[in-house]
Amino acid sequence: MLSRKDFEKLDKNDNLKDFRSKFSLPEGLIYFDGNSLGAMPKEAALRANEVVVKEWGHDLIQSWNKAGWFHLTEKIGNKIAKLIGANEGEVICTDATGLNLFKILAVALKMRPERKIILMEGSNFPTDNYTAQGLSQIMGQGHEVKFAEKNDILEAITEDVAVVSLTQVHYKKGHLLDMKAITKKAHQVGALIIWDLCHSAGALPIDLNGCDVDFAVGCTYKYLNGGPGSPAFLFVASRHQGKETQPLTGWWGHKAPFLFEQDYEQAKTIWQFLTGTQPILSLATAEVGIDIMVSADMEEIRKKSIKMSDLFIQLIDENLKEYDFCIASPLNSAERGSQISLYSENGYPIIKALIAAGVVGDFRAPDIMRFGFTPLYLKYTDLWDAVQRLKVIMENDVWKKAEFNEVSSVT
Amino acid sequence: MLSRKDFEKLDKNDNLKDFRSKFSLPEGLIYFDGNSLGAMPKEAALRANEVVVKEWGHDLIQSWNKAGWFHLTEKIGNKIAKLIGANEGEVICTDATGLNLFKILAVALKMRPERKIILMEGSNFPTDNYTAQGLSQIMGQGHEVKFAEKNDILEAITEDVAVVSLTQVHYKKGHLLDMKAITKKAHQVGALIIWDLCHSAGALPIDLNGCDVDFAVGCTYKYLNGGPGSPAFLFVASRHQGKETQPLTGWWGHKAPFLFEQDYEQAKTIWQFLTGTQPILSLATAEVGIDIMVSADMEEIRKKSIKMSDLFIQLIDENLKEYDFCIASPLNSAERGSQISLYSENGYPIIKALIAAGVVGDFRAPDIMRFGFTPLYLKYTDLWDAVQRLKVIMENDVWKKAEFNEVSSVT
Repeated sequence: MLSRKDFEKLDKNDNLKDFRSKFSLPEGLIYFDGNSLGAMPKEAALRANEVVVKEWGHDLIQSWNKAGWFHLTEKIGNKIAKLIGANEGEVICTDATGLNLFKILAVALKMRPERKIILMEGSNFPTDNYTAQGLSQIMGQGHEVKFAEKNDILEAITEDVAVVSLTQVHYKKGHLLDMKAITKKAHQVGALIIWDLCHSAGALPIDLNGCDVDFAVGCTYKYLNGGPGSPAFLFVASRHQGKETQPLTGWWGHKAPFLFEQDYEQAKTIWQFLTGTQPILSLATAEVGIDIMVSADMEEIRKKSIKMSDLFIQLIDENLKEYDFCIASPLNSAERGSQISLYSENGYPIIKALIAAGVVGDFRAPDIMRFGFTPLYLKYTDLWDAVQRLKVIMENDVWKKAEFNEVSSVT
Repeated sequence: MLSRKDFEKLDKNDNLKDFRSKFSLPEGLIYFDGNSLGAMPKEAALRANEVVVKEWGHDLIQSWNKAGWFHLTEKIGNKIAKLIGANEGEVICTDATGLNLFKILAVALKMRPERKIILMEGSNFPTDNYTAQGLSQIMGQGHEVKFAEKNDILEAITEDVAVVSLTQVHYKKGHLLDMKAITKKAHQVGALIIWDLCHSAGALPIDLNGCDVDFAVGCTYKYLNGGPGSPAFLFVASRHQGKETQPLTGWWGHKAPFLFEQDYEQAKTIWQFLTGTQPILSLATAEVGIDIMVSADMEEIRKKSIKMSDLFIQLIDENLKEYDFCIASPLNSAERGSQISLYSENGYPIIKALIAAGVVGDFRAPDIMRFGFTPLYLKYTDLWDAVQRLKVIMENDVWKKAEFNEVSSVT
């Protein structure tokens, strides 16, 4: 049986423990929702203030050059590249994930004009499905979105598939798809691959080029701690750049944006995937969290994440067996991202009661409770304390009195 | 002959003079570039800090409800609606201008399937042209972008035109198109109208519904003082909402986003034009500038703007006649937005010298110097002082020694 002492010892020997002080977390709060919105790096407040007061307020339009605003998407993209196994010039930080998927999916479909199938995991976070449906509809060329789940994906990658577009870690259950094997299979049948890294970038080591990935998108406000709704990123392998035009053509993607030419001619680099002016305050502030992540050892992060999630499962088993919290995530840590999801038909009121008790996880209809593990700012003792609080809630039926307010945290 | 005393008197009697104290401007700087990046409202720094430290840092994901993040696009949209003659529920603040144009142009083209012409003013800021070209290309239905300039526009609106898509005020020369007459002509021939309000929202009174406009887009970081790259807005007349699907389909535009359904079904309101998670820090901070604008009298703003630009022309004429600064903007104030552009083959070094002398205008290749007038924070004496500084630069050939650095302010 585990005891709090075991967790205290783990905290003491934690190689990542110094990172916690870089983040601001409310006293006493245990935060398992970094997979939805990452915690605030303390320096983010300073950076945001600098952007507003000095760069905007004082230097005004000069900041497009002087503060490097115009090149931020590329500069931050190159930092993200280090976290996902990409090279310099293959990643930009811009727009939202769905918009970036729209751009690269359009390019990918143009590259396989004779094929009409887009293969996706239909149960995953649906905005990618919606994007594929919206794009297929506007293209009007008879593209069809086909869905396959987890274990059926490899088999569903057949020679009529144009593009395989998958989210690496499942937003709800937390299972991790095999990037290497799936990418290989896609290429074997002549399909292209797009990986959505929303729930994996910053959570585990990713090697896009090592897996020969064609395209990827991802989010910076979860494990990269970029701030609410901070711009997403986009990866295009250098071999695919400057060829097919993406459809969201704006002046930032023009080969000579400051010539203000009447007709569009795309940049020949990753800049071709830019559209228009970016939300600089959100973008510049996001860099702080990304810098912290770049300074950490991703292998250490993965090690601690696995340790934490294994311990969490063990704690649930040892302390809450009688309440039948079925583990929705894979029990094999190699098949998981950095979250544990529990099934419970009372998941919604239980999550509400947990939040009231200072343990923040979230709920996904109809019956999933999600707990995300973010090794840079979570302590091992947080796991112990959280499960003890959950135990009190269950033993005393606290959850039956939980208030039913709207739950609408974001992805 | 005008003298500084005349300007001092105008400042004294200026009905808008109290607004200047709401903005932060560097001591001694005369800022004529609010048509590119509006000045910083002092409260913006406080608001940004509140979003970062309290809403993100302390309340974390709860802020999606507690701080109203999820409804910000609509809340701010309804404020912008008041500035442009729209009703509640017809405007949202989201994404970038070009992306919003992509959405509504796609809807408009679907509404006129038998017509293939998109009519635009080709010399205006080209990102709208690029958007139309990118959309036409991905739709693959033979749409064609046709260009007509200023005085030729009415005549070019013929019965084969599907959509007339125009920017109300020209980014370079500052001429103002006749929204009422052009919209009427478009409807007479059965075409739909889209107005891009980037250079007019916050600069002059706009009456979208009074002119029976179908769709509009616009920017919040120029005359609305929202901050660098703050999200754009989009107007869809209520009669056109919930019908044709727009192609950038993301979960925020789904009729029930938190059900996470596999297939897309659009909202029946203006929410159908949302895509994904918004850059909250940029969005929330933008509200400060928009609030100030809503609290001002737009007729007073227009009156002062016209007075200022007329005086600026007179000052150029009285003080700088020998240097042949040809006025590129219409001399009739009713045909102008809130800027004066001057032609000069030496425009680039002259603007550089002016900036060095604390007068910020900007340059647009090959030969245009732009001066934007923002009545909420500009003084009449700024006009006098600026022209005196320009006079010194011209009389002493200061501009011939100006450093040639990159100029890349944004639109």
